[in-house]
Amino acid sequence: MSKAHTELKPFFEPKGIAVIGARSSPGFGFGIPIRLMERGWGDQTYLVNPRGGEMHGLPVYKSAIDLPDPVDLAVVIVPGPSVLEVMGHIAKRGIKHVIIESAGFAETGSEGRAVQDKILELSRLHGIRIIGPNCVGVLNTANGFSTVEIMPESYTLGSLAVIAQSGVFGQSLMDRLYKHNLYFSKAVTLGNRMDVNESEILEYLHQDQDTKMIIMYIEGAADGRLLNQTLNRVTRDKPVIVLKSGRTSVGRAATASHTGSLSGEDELYESMFLQSGAIRAENLNEFMEFSRVFATQGLPKGNRLGIVTGSGSLGALAADAALTNGLVVPPLPERVRSQVLEGAPSWMNTKNPLDVGPSGQYPKAFKALMSDPDIDMVLAIIGAPYAVFQYMVGDETMAKRFLGDTSIFEGAARKKPCLICVFSHDELVNAVKRDVEPDIPVFTNPEMPVKALAALWRLAKWRQNHLE
Amino acid sequence: MSKAHTELKPFFEPKGIAVIGARSSPGFGFGIPIRLMERGWGDQTYLVNPRGGEMHGLPVYKSAIDLPDPVDLAVVIVPGPSVLEVMGHIAKRGIKHVIIESAGFAETGSEGRAVQDKILELSRLHGIRIIGPNCVGVLNTANGFSTVEIMPESYTLGSLAVIAQSGVFGQSLMDRLYKHNLYFSKAVTLGNRMDVNESEILEYLHQDQDTKMIIMYIEGAADGRLLNQTLNRVTRDKPVIVLKSGRTSVGRAATASHTGSLSGEDELYESMFLQSGAIRAENLNEFMEFSRVFATQGLPKGNRLGIVTGSGSLGALAADAALTNGLVVPPLPERVRSQVLEGAPSWMNTKNPLDVGPSGQYPKAFKALMSDPDIDMVLAIIGAPYAVFQYMVGDETMAKRFLGDTSIFEGAARKKPCLICVFSHDELVNAVKRDVEPDIPVFTNPEMPVKALAALWRLAKWRQNHLE
Repeated sequence: MSKAHTELKPFFEPKGIAVIGARSSPGFGFGIPIRLMERGWGDQTYLVNPRGGEMHGLPVYKSAIDLPDPVDLAVVIVPGPSVLEVMGHIAKRGIKHVIIESAGFAETGSEGRAVQDKILELSRLHGIRIIGPNCVGVLNTANGFSTVEIMPESYTLGSLAVIAQSGVFGQSLMDRLYKHNLYFSKAVTLGNRMDVNESEILEYLHQDQDTKMIIMYIEGAADGRLLNQTLNRVTRDKPVIVLKSGRTSVGRAATASHTGSLSGEDELYESMFLQSGAIRAENLNEFMEFSRVFATQGLPKGNRLGIVTGSGSLGALAADAALTNGLVVPPLPERVRSQVLEGAPSWMNTKNPLDVGPSGQYPKAFKALMSDPDIDMVLAIIGAPYAVFQYMVGDETMAKRFLGDTSIFEGAARKKPCLICVFSHDELVNAVKRDVEPDIPVFTNPEMPVKALAALWRLAKWRQNHLE
Repeated sequence: MSKAHTELKPFFEPKGIAVIGARSSPGFGFGIPIRLMERGWGDQTYLVNPRGGEMHGLPVYKSAIDLPDPVDLAVVIVPGPSVLEVMGHIAKRGIKHVIIESAGFAETGSEGRAVQDKILELSRLHGIRIIGPNCVGVLNTANGFSTVEIMPESYTLGSLAVIAQSGVFGQSLMDRLYKHNLYFSKAVTLGNRMDVNESEILEYLHQDQDTKMIIMYIEGAADGRLLNQTLNRVTRDKPVIVLKSGRTSVGRAATASHTGSLSGEDELYESMFLQSGAIRAENLNEFMEFSRVFATQGLPKGNRLGIVTGSGSLGALAADAALTNGLVVPPLPERVRSQVLEGAPSWMNTKNPLDVGPSGQYPKAFKALMSDPDIDMVLAIIGAPYAVFQYMVGDETMAKRFLGDTSIFEGAARKKPCLICVFSHDELVNAVKRDVEPDIPVFTNPEMPVKALAALWRLAKWRQNHLE
């Protein structure tokens, strides 16, 4: 295990937790103890509030100094101006890991930065590691430990790790990803990042057995060179998808007053991500969509895309997106052509994109593309006029009737990357989703899945170049 | 009324319709007479099939030659090889408007193109206007006339006109747009476009009183110079949003075998759209999203965007998108600052993006931006961690409690362009949608609404430059 893993472990697997600033009415400090108790952490949770007394059936300690053993993690939720004092108590008590959720530091200007610097000085003196301030801390689904209030569905154990600089953003991200069947291994929000930074967390997640891929939202690097080196190591084994704001002057000014981040020139980040094998998403939508594609698809062997479609227009749009994003759409291999032509009407052409129209050759075409060694990835496009399609619906599900049978998609994504676009009435979209997701993500436009396939290829190529 | 309007009128308001190739079992030619009868066109519908007899309770004529008066439009759905013969009958009978839905012409290669040319020759000789072949014809919601099978919801009268080169694509588009409360005035699919082209249809829709805006999918221009001139006229009065495939060599090859289109060099199209005031969407998703923004928002007076947000990250991402797409995010006018600061906590900054955090100042900030003359358009971002937010929910709707009251959004879009981004749990997204759509479109990412606002500004600026 690396240094990062050992040093950061108590943030994710504490032996005892002090909640400093616990309170009995809604607001910061109210929900966290409740969640901890719900998830079986009641015995290891110690509440601190100067008023003392009892809360949620637990005794309340007046200061961190009074806490019994074992407590190796403190979660600080007191108002900003009280944090320095509280940190003094924590240091005295000998707690070495602290998550400061309170805001009002470097992100507010020079005065706040001065206080933040004092806290850092104190923590360095006592060998304390800090996550935050101005964050909501961590989530570890493996043991149900969380310093953040999230929805019950976000506790489901998954293989996706989230690093988010902002607390609100990180939480909102979790609120949306479960909808795509994306569940988490770990989540960390870093806030002002006065001590623990994204590179250390990446290092930790690199070692984490539950984590298969990492998605990261940052507003700047704490240490650009370190981030570059770290990404270079991590992306060899686990895909890292990055969304970075502060591309423009106004965006950079916004991040400065948000998490005190200096975003720096965007070109430098752009080339760092390219060099280090990280996959940069251009925008939030791409970030979400790339996540579900990387979470479900393997990496392609090459960049040859096969497109099967029921709509020539959608096929043309997909082909345009492919060439624009570094993929090739090669002429179909002879093996594929001959399989598809068997029993096909004379009007059907066998180009790539392969527009089968209403020929009934869809299942055959899809299977031929999936099993051909000279096609590295497949986009299956379903563009069906629903009114016409309804006639075909008998007693079977619509999706099955239309495609011959959606069972053609079963297990497909295990062979090679494969995505589906359905541009039709929502009833058909949802029928296909029910049948094939989460194994094969379904999109309602042709360009985004192509961009995602191109991103898979970027990482595959990077690894080919760096792992030889 | 223009020449185009008079000449094309029978395609949309026929006095009598011949359905040539009507059949009694599911497939092409089956559903169209049923739809016509359902929508009150039974008395004016005449079925033609060499077998004669009766169908759907209507007599079946053996040939177009036998048809009684008045029939001024023929819809041809016979197999491709029979079309030329059928056109002979139509010419003999003196019908001057024909929609050929049959496929198997220029899109299949030189042989098909030769037949298509013969049909064109015949029609020129007899003064016949043709839409198609290889299309599904038209829809006119004002009178319920349609030569295409669509879902009942697509018959709702709206103000959006659709031009689509491909039939399948046009139908699928209709199957999806109603979901966004977008309803149609007219829809036309052009297919191989052997006679009537997109410029004539644009001209017709320019005159059409029900049409307030036009969205168009094309694979190439029938006549580039004519399209340029036509767009130049139409976009002065009605926004035209264009999606064009064939950006790349493979995309162009795909359109050739799809609708026989020569897409041409993309750069030429790009500059034509810029010069003529058309708004080009980069991809299908943008095409759909721009449509609902142009359908609901007016044009801005300038390009100064005000952003109010509960999440600093989302604000920064929006600011980045704004600057990248030609908008400015100016410092907040003093009037706005002073209104927002009234009763605000000391930590709140008043930059633009205006990150109000959990200050409770959201309604005040939104209203101040909406009423300030130095802000031309507004993006309202709601990034709420749902688990925290749930506590705030009492007996009122969630959206109301969170934002103070969503009534702040009421009528807002009538003052200046205004869009909303909600990045949170779907329950909150849907609650906001219920309250504010369709007047204000809701998005789940910050960049797309910014791009759409930038597109509104592109048209506004074009008009400022061309209408002085």
